[in-house]
Amino acid sequence: MTCETEEIYEVSDLERIFNPGNIAIIGVSAKGFGFGSGMFLSLLSVGFKGKIYPVNPKGGEFAGMTMYKNVDEIPGEIDFAIIAVPARLVPGALEACRRKGVTGAEILTAGFKESGLPEGVALEEEIRRIANKGIRVIGPNCFGIYCPKSGLTLLPGPDLSRDSGPVAFLSQSGGMAIDFAHIGKWAGIKFSKVVSFGNGADLRETELLEYLGRDPETRVISMYIEGVEDGKEFFKILKDVASKKPVIVYKGGLSDAGHRAVESHTASLGGNKVIWESVLRQCNAIQVGDLWEMAQTTMAFSLLPEKVYEGIAVAGGGGALGVSACDAAEGFGLALPRLEKRISDKIMEVLPKPGSSAANPIDVANPLVPPNVLGEALLNAGEDKKIDIQILISLLHHYKPLAMGMGVAVKEATPYNELVTMAKEVVDTTGKPVVLVLPNYKQEMEYMDIEELMRETRRVFLDKGIPVFGELKDALRAIARVSNYYARK
Amino acid sequence: MTCETEEIYEVSDLERIFNPGNIAIIGVSAKGFGFGSGMFLSLLSVGFKGKIYPVNPKGGEFAGMTMYKNVDEIPGEIDFAIIAVPARLVPGALEACRRKGVTGAEILTAGFKESGLPEGVALEEEIRRIANKGIRVIGPNCFGIYCPKSGLTLLPGPDLSRDSGPVAFLSQSGGMAIDFAHIGKWAGIKFSKVVSFGNGADLRETELLEYLGRDPETRVISMYIEGVEDGKEFFKILKDVASKKPVIVYKGGLSDAGHRAVESHTASLGGNKVIWESVLRQCNAIQVGDLWEMAQTTMAFSLLPEKVYEGIAVAGGGGALGVSACDAAEGFGLALPRLEKRISDKIMEVLPKPGSSAANPIDVANPLVPPNVLGEALLNAGEDKKIDIQILISLLHHYKPLAMGMGVAVKEATPYNELVTMAKEVVDTTGKPVVLVLPNYKQEMEYMDIEELMRETRRVFLDKGIPVFGELKDALRAIARVSNYYARK
Repeated sequence: MTCETEEIYEVSDLERIFNPGNIAIIGVSAKGFGFGSGMFLSLLSVGFKGKIYPVNPKGGEFAGMTMYKNVDEIPGEIDFAIIAVPARLVPGALEACRRKGVTGAEILTAGFKESGLPEGVALEEEIRRIANKGIRVIGPNCFGIYCPKSGLTLLPGPDLSRDSGPVAFLSQSGGMAIDFAHIGKWAGIKFSKVVSFGNGADLRETELLEYLGRDPETRVISMYIEGVEDGKEFFKILKDVASKKPVIVYKGGLSDAGHRAVESHTASLGGNKVIWESVLRQCNAIQVGDLWEMAQTTMAFSLLPEKVYEGIAVAGGGGALGVSACDAAEGFGLALPRLEKRISDKIMEVLPKPGSSAANPIDVANPLVPPNVLGEALLNAGEDKKIDIQILISLLHHYKPLAMGMGVAVKEATPYNELVTMAKEVVDTTGKPVVLVLPNYKQEMEYMDIEELMRETRRVFLDKGIPVFGELKDALRAIARVSNYYARK
Repeated sequence: MTCETEEIYEVSDLERIFNPGNIAIIGVSAKGFGFGSGMFLSLLSVGFKGKIYPVNPKGGEFAGMTMYKNVDEIPGEIDFAIIAVPARLVPGALEACRRKGVTGAEILTAGFKESGLPEGVALEEEIRRIANKGIRVIGPNCFGIYCPKSGLTLLPGPDLSRDSGPVAFLSQSGGMAIDFAHIGKWAGIKFSKVVSFGNGADLRETELLEYLGRDPETRVISMYIEGVEDGKEFFKILKDVASKKPVIVYKGGLSDAGHRAVESHTASLGGNKVIWESVLRQCNAIQVGDLWEMAQTTMAFSLLPEKVYEGIAVAGGGGALGVSACDAAEGFGLALPRLEKRISDKIMEVLPKPGSSAANPIDVANPLVPPNVLGEALLNAGEDKKIDIQILISLLHHYKPLAMGMGVAVKEATPYNELVTMAKEVVDTTGKPVVLVLPNYKQEMEYMDIEELMRETRRVFLDKGIPVFGELKDALRAIARVSNYYARK
């Protein structure tokens, strides 16, 4: 019973931190310099609805608001504090918050354990001691919490998306947190919570992961970790959470030099590569090797139905693309089964000739084949029992010469709206997902219009819940990861 | 002696094909439909300087030029013919060219061996017979030859670059040829010759590779092959050429399904994966797995000095990037050696604190560190004997909020010109190359200005001969490939 009570207590603490009714920002400069002032403006810009109390020992004003000289002056209870004073002043500020009864604080300031200096190590020890007396701490050396629902945002985060979604991200690195949150904005990843916990003097990977495992707003969890405090406990929790929801893990610092970089970055204990990889596999966590891979994998998990995908159909214009598709699929343990003859015959009826083929991959012979013809091909291929998912490769830059010939803008000449309507119809009719691959081979300065077309196309597909990748290999890898996770689950 | 004479004869034939004084295009439609008319306009657009003779059995006019009813009507000698008539008419057109004494022809038409139909196979056999009687043939089922120096261009190639450079590309796939040529235009790859040889009824991989091995205008060779006609001969030539110049090979169709796709694409014999990989290694050819990898590797070979690179220094803002750099470098067999203490101390003197570190990776603490500070760091790191090459990671999108604060365009707020001047100075002073990594994490519709900034930055760096990559992993992989090639050579 003690354990249960504790659990409930912790959850409500973290709930209050993620959804604060009000915030004190300690270290706002009247001149607008520094992290505190930046965070103040970012919260306004992102639309935090509660009360924000700026604190500066000299008082004064910022952005039309009177500043409090210390937290004690602030009337009433405080849910959350953001601390952005110089490192040596942090323990005092945190202790004042604790005395005031603040539930939790994020400490943005750097210069603690990661500095490698004795003063920094001692200051961090003090933070830990104060936290243990009764205030939860995120950081130090972090970018804080982003929670679109409550209006919290990361340090340089005035322009993060305000849309909530099913993905949580835990990151020891602030840069990785802000970069991932930015990528999410255009790559189809919507967040429940993002936490940059930096040195993790108090709250860190294990406890946060456990919380997210129970969080009904979180369906997919991604993490960037440089090191864990208690490996045994972390893996126990990871195994438990990963048995309920996909957990995507990017572990940095598995090389010798990477280990050295970790020391000066977040002062974590790295750990052995072989052990990490085998334990992650045992936990059925999904290991990724870099930021893009993490983004693509996370997007796939959040958009694809929770299923095993073995047979893939690939359709597109250009034979070499089909060849590449097959080779890459095999490398990821996926198959492009030959379509039933009656199905490929039916597809061949609608495809232009010569140059096309429909055994799978489906080579539609040229990239300007109209969406309804592509739709016929995908509807038929989706009928094959061996096919679980379909990939459409669209080389939209080929519409540029056509547009020039017609004297119109490339967006007007390109049937991207028809393409997305067709793809959605295929998904709804066949009950099998479609994934779009949208490479851009024309990235010259003078072809910004093609880039705009690509981004608009990506947006309309993602809006319909259809995953979009820039490269075929990335799409196949992400599908394989989703499939493997549900196969092992 | 016979052998030598033959060789000289062949070279001069191919020389004439790559640099024709005049061209007959057989199959130009008066209405402007089809490949022939498209190629006619493309050649004008790219600036072919010689005479172009359009041929149409019905005569008539196209683009203000009178059409010849057949090649025999064309006065004088013809160097090169482009054949774009329907498949069943191709042998007749080719035979007419041969009788006329045309040196070589490219056949753009598809519908031959790759169709899998007996008629197609028979028609291709006829082409081969005619070629053997004395006319060299590129194709059929191809996009032809692109040679910026002579003004030849690929099938849908009105907008390819007119700048010549050291890279040759041989491709069995037309789509791959045009895509690679387009990528080259903005990714720092300049071409001597690109040949899409399709089904390769006459001229194909081995002979063309041998020619390029001797071609003084070609310093780096890339190839996309689906299958070779005579494996033993090909590998003999490959080994010989790769001992003189880097040969980058993208072999498609090494999987089961890929093999099937190859059949319907260029009707080649695929071959076994294990054998291919081991033979390529024995030949010291550089194997790549997809189009982007081929582009990045080719660019690195064409821009980096011909040397072995073992020790890398990595500098950038953001600790996690440094951690990623170390991990990825180790995976490619490269090292980030710890810098000499006196050197890292000197670097630490100029870096902002806290948050920075200079043991290698060099974490400059924030992405807005001015170019002269970065320059100091790179100049010092370049003095370390263990460092052979340096990577600079620039997160330029971080200048966007700064630009907004200043009320100016992001291009005005970003010191990209100072960055390139600094990087060039580092290269010249240290005698060691610098490579730029330029990720774009803000690809929203509303941030097209950031994309423009990235492209402009990429352009100014490439103009100074500094390789630019979008992702760190790609940069490391490409450097490792260059290093391994020269280590084994």
